[in-house]
Amino acid sequence: MPEVTERAVNVQEHLQQVVTLLSKQRMVEDIVHRQTMPRHDLVETLVHKQHMVELERKLNEMHPADVAYILEALPLAQRLQVWDLVRAERDGEILLEVSEPVRETLIAHMDRDELVAAAEQLDSDEIADIAPDLPREVITDVFNLLPVEEREQLRAALSYPKDAVGALMDFGMVTIREDVTLEVVLRYLRRIGELPRHTDTLFVVDRMNALRGVLMLNQLLLNEPEAEVSALVQRDVVKFEPDDDAHQAAEAFERYNLISAPVVDASGKLIGRVTVESVLDYIRATTDTELLKMGGLREEEDIFAPVWNSLRNRWPWLAINMVTAFVASRVIGAFEGSIEKIVALAALMPIVAGIGGNSGNQTITMIVRALALGQITAANATKLLGKELLIAFINGLLWGTILGVVAFLLYNNFALGMVMMSAMTLNLLLAALAGVAIPFIMYKLGRDPAVGSSVMITALTDSGGFFIFLGLATLFLL
Amino acid sequence: MPEVTERAVNVQEHLQQVVTLLSKQRMVEDIVHRQTMPRHDLVETLVHKQHMVELERKLNEMHPADVAYILEALPLAQRLQVWDLVRAERDGEILLEVSEPVRETLIAHMDRDELVAAAEQLDSDEIADIAPDLPREVITDVFNLLPVEEREQLRAALSYPKDAVGALMDFGMVTIREDVTLEVVLRYLRRIGELPRHTDTLFVVDRMNALRGVLMLNQLLLNEPEAEVSALVQRDVVKFEPDDDAHQAAEAFERYNLISAPVVDASGKLIGRVTVESVLDYIRATTDTELLKMGGLREEEDIFAPVWNSLRNRWPWLAINMVTAFVASRVIGAFEGSIEKIVALAALMPIVAGIGGNSGNQTITMIVRALALGQITAANATKLLGKELLIAFINGLLWGTILGVVAFLLYNNFALGMVMMSAMTLNLLLAALAGVAIPFIMYKLGRDPAVGSSVMITALTDSGGFFIFLGLATLFLL
Repeated sequence: MPEVTERAVNVQEHLQQVVTLLSKQRMVEDIVHRQTMPRHDLVETLVHKQHMVELERKLNEMHPADVAYILEALPLAQRLQVWDLVRAERDGEILLEVSEPVRETLIAHMDRDELVAAAEQLDSDEIADIAPDLPREVITDVFNLLPVEEREQLRAALSYPKDAVGALMDFGMVTIREDVTLEVVLRYLRRIGELPRHTDTLFVVDRMNALRGVLMLNQLLLNEPEAEVSALVQRDVVKFEPDDDAHQAAEAFERYNLISAPVVDASGKLIGRVTVESVLDYIRATTDTELLKMGGLREEEDIFAPVWNSLRNRWPWLAINMVTAFVASRVIGAFEGSIEKIVALAALMPIVAGIGGNSGNQTITMIVRALALGQITAANATKLLGKELLIAFINGLLWGTILGVVAFLLYNNFALGMVMMSAMTLNLLLAALAGVAIPFIMYKLGRDPAVGSSVMITALTDSGGFFIFLGLATLFLL
Repeated sequence: MPEVTERAVNVQEHLQQVVTLLSKQRMVEDIVHRQTMPRHDLVETLVHKQHMVELERKLNEMHPADVAYILEALPLAQRLQVWDLVRAERDGEILLEVSEPVRETLIAHMDRDELVAAAEQLDSDEIADIAPDLPREVITDVFNLLPVEEREQLRAALSYPKDAVGALMDFGMVTIREDVTLEVVLRYLRRIGELPRHTDTLFVVDRMNALRGVLMLNQLLLNEPEAEVSALVQRDVVKFEPDDDAHQAAEAFERYNLISAPVVDASGKLIGRVTVESVLDYIRATTDTELLKMGGLREEEDIFAPVWNSLRNRWPWLAINMVTAFVASRVIGAFEGSIEKIVALAALMPIVAGIGGNSGNQTITMIVRALALGQITAANATKLLGKELLIAFINGLLWGTILGVVAFLLYNNFALGMVMMSAMTLNLLLAALAGVAIPFIMYKLGRDPAVGSSVMITALTDSGGFFIFLGLATLFLL
């Protein structure tokens, strides 16, 4: 458990203080560099030292999460300067708090011994969390240094995929037997001297370590010491297995307002627990990833990452869009003859494509959300599709008519207006159909519908929109 | 506190069972309707009754959050059928759990007395949560029925905007004095008989109710009963004021892994507390809203909402996009003469606009995230802009060259290829500039950069892309 440190409601104040100290120190360095008069040297070195000492003191008073926050917000050179000032025995807990790309920059700056020392400060489940970023040989060293029990825990923790409950699990459990009195439990707790963070329940197990239920910590306080555990144990417990879906576990935590929950193996033996802390981290990480992927980034990006890293993070998406844009361009290319005759088509076609894309994305947002919440069943899927098609039809007629009138007024061509309206309606219907079908199919294929769906529908409504509009124009206007 | 009910790791199983029972019952109803032979009547009514009784029993065994989940996933008619089966004394806790649009459909189906009875089951902070959906006269009735203290709490809770800590606050606090022993505290707790949910700390106050610190519940268990509270009280406490930003409070909960934290007024008096439960709800609600708004929906939408409601939810966004698409269309219209001469421009222009939009959205996603995390300072903003411009320049040259070569090969026109490459580079630079500037300006203006930024940049890179590409073509190719 981390010691109690200074904590701030507004962590930006911390950041501002650090930046100020760093810039003062940089000014001193600049002076030292520019001036060469020896008599000043001593004073400046002292002033320099003073800033650094103050910064060091500040950093070591801060909560590890706040130090992590500051490291994230600093450009690489200053980040490493601050990192050097952090006391070595706090390295582990801070590495745990920073984001993955920032962790990589810090780890790259540490040698093998430092890394082993940092990892050693952590619990086995925490080591597993940062293990993917550690060099192979560091993990081997750490592994050999761990006591047998923790070594087994680390091995287990490393074996779970990141979307399994096993990856959220820690081993900070207090277990008790049910044939004792609260008095005995209390004496036992006082002997241990401290409880793992977020302990709201004690796990009641039998002699084979099979979970029999939980005892709420409250019960220890609210009942007379003579009461037996067996009379107060809660049997109906939300429990997980390590292979359960982490997403589902997080939802159970939210629905039932859990603080901690036991993890058992297939035979019912207690092997770990999940706390609201790792659930919160998981929720934050997954929604973050989702937002980033929707924005076209491959993964989380350190804002001060070298340009080369940023480029690699952004290329996959640009490449995909290049291909879809090229396809759309070829669809237009196929109708160059028609555009040559009625050049107004070139100006109007992006509207049809654009509104189709927007409408399709609205449908997809709805459906992806309902799928994520598990609200879509085979029974109501057709009903939903029907509703989306009806909405698309109404929107198509409505906005299509407006645009049709505008096109008619602009180009004084009634047939062009009619083509505009029909194309809008058809493209919105296509968008609604695809907006329901794409996420549904991806879900059935076991893919995450949140990520690729939006690209696909935009590609479809672009190419489809151009094809429908230019096709109708070629049929009816030429 | 809700009674202990059946809880499921996978709530979809619950939903499936309800749907099965509902469909069985519907089958029976169909038979009753179609057949008119009196001798069957009795049996069918019995079978019908049997299904409904089983469904009712199932529902009343479920956790309120699970019933809420099922109500969300059912079309309106079935939703109301299920709602009628829920025991009246559970209405309040379930109304609290369902989403706002679904809550509206349930409330519309209840009369004044039912609503008052439902609200009365809730704590004052919970009544405040559902108050916006309740008819005015119901709130008045409830208000008059509440004891004075709770009436004041409700009045206070209703007065906070939804993004203030006050809106997350509840009043389930246990307060103690510091000049007593743990023994006294324990006796006091046993007399109360139960603790509010998520009580991990007791609040230590003086006789003026000013907060002096907190006593971790753990300390009660781990220390001898003779110890004095004053020796164990933790003075350095993360505490909030009701007007503090809820977003910042949620971040503090995450950073410091809090379960509950006190809320004090300006003079330091304890007035309430925030728990991880309301923080989780808040995080879920805000990320949900953000995702919905990014998808172009005005607010959360009941998937079974009447078509009219859905239309109203989607029109604002479509209208905005209509305007931006129209502007882009007029930009193209201004160059109709050029397109008439080189029709290839019509086919190539959407690529320039599209890739610009994608690249701009990548930048915006990064910047919005960094702004939300408070990582952008005046000092590093220019650094970030420089980096984004460099990335845009490299990407422009790279992808621009590829497209330029493709354009050259397709149309056998070297100058067209050069225009393509230059237009790509310029549009990506525009995208990078706007991708940094737009969210930054919105942030400075106190608006949420997450929502409108994406629309704005797409509008800009569309119109800008068309203008740059067609403009360069007109200058150099004609």
